[in-house]
Amino acid sequence: MARTVDLLITGGTVVTLDNQDTKFIPGALAIDGDAIIALGRNEEILAAYHGKETLDVPGSIVMPGLVNAHTHAAMTCFRGIADDMELMDWLNRYIFPAEAGNVNPELAYWGSLLACAEMIKSGTTTFSDMYIFEQETARAAKQAGMRCLIGEVLFDFPSPNFKTPEEGLAYTEKLIQTWADDPLVNIMVEPHALYTCSADLLKASKILADRYRVPLATHFLENKSEAKQLEAIFGMRATAFLRERGFLDERFIAFHGVMMDEEDMRIFADLGCKVVHNPESNMKLASGVAPVTAMRKQGIVVGLGTDGCASNNDLDMFQEMDTAAKLGKAALLDPTVMSARTVLRMATGDGAKALGLDGLVGTLEAGKKADICIIDMDKPHLTPMYDEYSHLVYTVGGADVETVLINGKFVMKNRRLLTIDEEEVMQRVRSIALRVKKSLGNGF
Amino acid sequence: MARTVDLLITGGTVVTLDNQDTKFIPGALAIDGDAIIALGRNEEILAAYHGKETLDVPGSIVMPGLVNAHTHAAMTCFRGIADDMELMDWLNRYIFPAEAGNVNPELAYWGSLLACAEMIKSGTTTFSDMYIFEQETARAAKQAGMRCLIGEVLFDFPSPNFKTPEEGLAYTEKLIQTWADDPLVNIMVEPHALYTCSADLLKASKILADRYRVPLATHFLENKSEAKQLEAIFGMRATAFLRERGFLDERFIAFHGVMMDEEDMRIFADLGCKVVHNPESNMKLASGVAPVTAMRKQGIVVGLGTDGCASNNDLDMFQEMDTAAKLGKAALLDPTVMSARTVLRMATGDGAKALGLDGLVGTLEAGKKADICIIDMDKPHLTPMYDEYSHLVYTVGGADVETVLINGKFVMKNRRLLTIDEEEVMQRVRSIALRVKKSLGNGF
Repeated sequence: MARTVDLLITGGTVVTLDNQDTKFIPGALAIDGDAIIALGRNEEILAAYHGKETLDVPGSIVMPGLVNAHTHAAMTCFRGIADDMELMDWLNRYIFPAEAGNVNPELAYWGSLLACAEMIKSGTTTFSDMYIFEQETARAAKQAGMRCLIGEVLFDFPSPNFKTPEEGLAYTEKLIQTWADDPLVNIMVEPHALYTCSADLLKASKILADRYRVPLATHFLENKSEAKQLEAIFGMRATAFLRERGFLDERFIAFHGVMMDEEDMRIFADLGCKVVHNPESNMKLASGVAPVTAMRKQGIVVGLGTDGCASNNDLDMFQEMDTAAKLGKAALLDPTVMSARTVLRMATGDGAKALGLDGLVGTLEAGKKADICIIDMDKPHLTPMYDEYSHLVYTVGGADVETVLINGKFVMKNRRLLTIDEEEVMQRVRSIALRVKKSLGNGF
Repeated sequence: MARTVDLLITGGTVVTLDNQDTKFIPGALAIDGDAIIALGRNEEILAAYHGKETLDVPGSIVMPGLVNAHTHAAMTCFRGIADDMELMDWLNRYIFPAEAGNVNPELAYWGSLLACAEMIKSGTTTFSDMYIFEQETARAAKQAGMRCLIGEVLFDFPSPNFKTPEEGLAYTEKLIQTWADDPLVNIMVEPHALYTCSADLLKASKILADRYRVPLATHFLENKSEAKQLEAIFGMRATAFLRERGFLDERFIAFHGVMMDEEDMRIFADLGCKVVHNPESNMKLASGVAPVTAMRKQGIVVGLGTDGCASNNDLDMFQEMDTAAKLGKAALLDPTVMSARTVLRMATGDGAKALGLDGLVGTLEAGKKADICIIDMDKPHLTPMYDEYSHLVYTVGGADVETVLINGKFVMKNRRLLTIDEEEVMQRVRSIALRVKKSLGNGF
C-alpha cells in the first residue's frame, strides 16, 4: 500500500550530490512536510508513495538548492554604483558615502527582499549575510521563505544602526533570541574584519558566539595590503594572532582568505575553521586568488559565495561556480583542479557545512529538508548533454532555474515567484536608488 | 513631412557605443532596408520618420549586436564532452577521436545551426568561425540570418573534409567564390596553427588570402608549450618568423595570443595585425592570461570570442565580457583596467574591426547595417541601474536578450527565434550526440 505524502517530484534527472555522487535517471523524490522522505528511481518511488501533489519534470535536472555562503543582500540597492576603481577609492568615494546617508531599515528590508528574489530565481535556497539592520534582512528572508544564516556587522565606529560596539553586540544578541526557534532564519556573530574591530570587540564577539553556540564569521585576509597591515598591528600573522586569542574553532568562518599561506591553512585545518571563497568579487576588486585547491587538500571545508552586489554585480551562484572552476585552473595553470564536481560540492554540501547547516541541507538525501532546485534543460545552450555535472557548472545559468522549493514549500514555480511581489520590490528599490543617486550629487 | 521607413525602434535607452559613447534616453532608431537611417532622441526621430512598423521598448537597452570574434560553431555537438583535463589528454582522448569518426556535413550543419540559435538568443549578431565543412556553417548562418566571417580549417594532415592541404585550399577558394556577393557570409583563409601547418601551407594560405583580399587567421601562441615548441622549430619567436615571411599585415588575425611578449606586441601594432581574446577558454584549459591591457596600450585592435563549446562550454558573449573584465583585473591586480566600457567595445566595434567588418557593424550609427540587440532590463537581477555600461558587462546575461535584428531583419522577437526551428535543431543535435557517445565507447 503506497504511503501518502505531500509532494512527489518525478521524471527528472536527480543529482543528489551525496558522498557517492548518486544519480537517478529518471528519478523521483517523496516530500512530506518540510523534509525529503525518500528518493530513488522513478518507478520505485511511484510504487511506494502516493503524492497529494505530483510535479513531473522530464528533461529537467533536480538538484539541491545552492548555498550562497557569503553576501551582503541589501547591497542590491548599490548594484553597479561604481566599478573599475581601486578598493579604497571605491569604498571612500562611493560605498561609504552612499551607505552613511542612505542605509536605514527600509533600504535593508527592500534591498534584502530584492536579493531574495534574485537568489531564488537563480537557484539559491540558503544564504549567509552580513550587513546593517539585519532584523530587516531576517524579515525579508522570512517573507521570501529563504533559509539563512545572518548577522549584524560589528565594528569600532558607529554604523547607521548603532552608536557603539556594545549596542551592536546587544542588537546581535537580541537577533539570536528573536529567531532562536525559527526553522529558516539562523543568526551568527559577525565582526566586520580584524582591521575595523578592536581586540576587545573581537573578544566580546567570540564570547557572545560561544554563549549561544553560533558561528563567528568575519572578512579575513581579503588582499595583500590587509595582510600586511594586520601583521604590522599584531606583530605576527593574523591567523596566529586569532589562534593565540582562542578565536579559532569549528564555528569560525573566514570570508575570502585570499592571502592565506601554508601555515595559516594548517592552523585552519587543525582547528576545523571554515572558509568562503568569493572568486568574482576577488577578481573585480583585484584582490588576488584564494588558494582554494591547497585549502581543500589540507582538508579545510570551503564554501562558495557571491559577495555583495556592489562588487560582483549579481548573486548568480551558477555563474559563480563557472568562474570558480575556471579561475582555479587559470591561477595554477592546471586544468585538472577545481573540477565541475568539486565546485558543485562547494556550492551545496560544503557551503552548508561551512555554515553549520549540513545536518539540514546541501544534498538530496532522505531526512534532509526539501531545499530543491529544478532546472529546465530543454534549451539550445544546454544541448546536447553528455554529463550533468559539466553542464551544471559550465553552461547552466541562473535564468535556467524553473522551480525552487525551500523547506518543502514552493517559492518559485515556472519562474514565477510565489512569496515575493516582484514588481513591488523592484519599484521600491528603484525609488531608493533615486534617493541614493541624489545624495551622491553631481557624479550621477 | 515625415519620411516613411520600414521600422522605428522607440522608447528604449539607446547605447550606441560610437567613438563618443553617445547615449539617447529615451532614444529611437529609424531603419530602412538593411540599414540604420537615423538615430537620436525619441521625439526627434518620431518627428522626422514614420515607421511602417514600430517597436516600442521602454525599459530596455538598445545596443549594437555582439561580435563573437572566434568560435568553432559546429562544436556545440561536443559541448561538455570532456572537461577538467590536460589539453593533450583532452584533444587526444576525446576531441580528436570524437571528431575523426563523427564530423560530417550533417554534424557541421546542425551543430552550426544550434550555435546560431544559441548566439542569437544571447545577443550575438556576427561570428567568426573556423572548423570543418564550412560550407555547411555558411548555409546554417544563411538560414539563421546571421552575419559571419568563416573559413575551413587547414592543416598538414587529412581532415574529415579533405585528404591534402591542396584540397583544403581549393575548398577554401571555392567558398570565397561561392559567397563573394553574399550580404551576410564572408570567407577568410584559416590555417589551424603554426604547429600543425608547414611553412608551405602557410605560404599558400597567405597567397590565397592576398589574391582575394580576405583575412588570414590562425590560432597563435595559445599557451607556453606552444610558444616553446615554435621557438624551437623556427629558431626565433613565432612573431618574428611570421614577419620575416611577410605574413603579418592588417588582415592578419591571431586567435588567443596568450604568450605574446612586448616585442611581439610592437610588431603587431606596427603592422596593424589583430588579436582575438578568449578568456573563458584560456582559463578552462589553463592556457594562461593574454596581456590584453598591454596590447590595447600598444594600439592593437583586440576583439573578444568565446572559442568553441567544447572548451567554454557556451557561446554567451555577455558572460564572456564579464569574465574578460574580471580576469584582466585579477591578472594585473589592478581593478582600474579592463573597464566595462573597454570590454563592451571589444565585444562590438573592436571585434568588428578585427574581422574587417567595422564599415558595416559594431556600433549604432546612421549608415551602418541594422544589427541590433534589445535587452529587457525589468528584472530583479538588473535592478536598480545606476550605469548602463556597468550592467551590460557585469549583470546582464544572454538570457536577458529579448529581441535581435540582423541586417535589418528580426531574427528573434520576445525570445522566439524567427529563422530557426529550435525544437528541430535540438532534436537533430541530440541524435548526433548519441552517435558520438556510442563511437567513444565505454567511457560514456
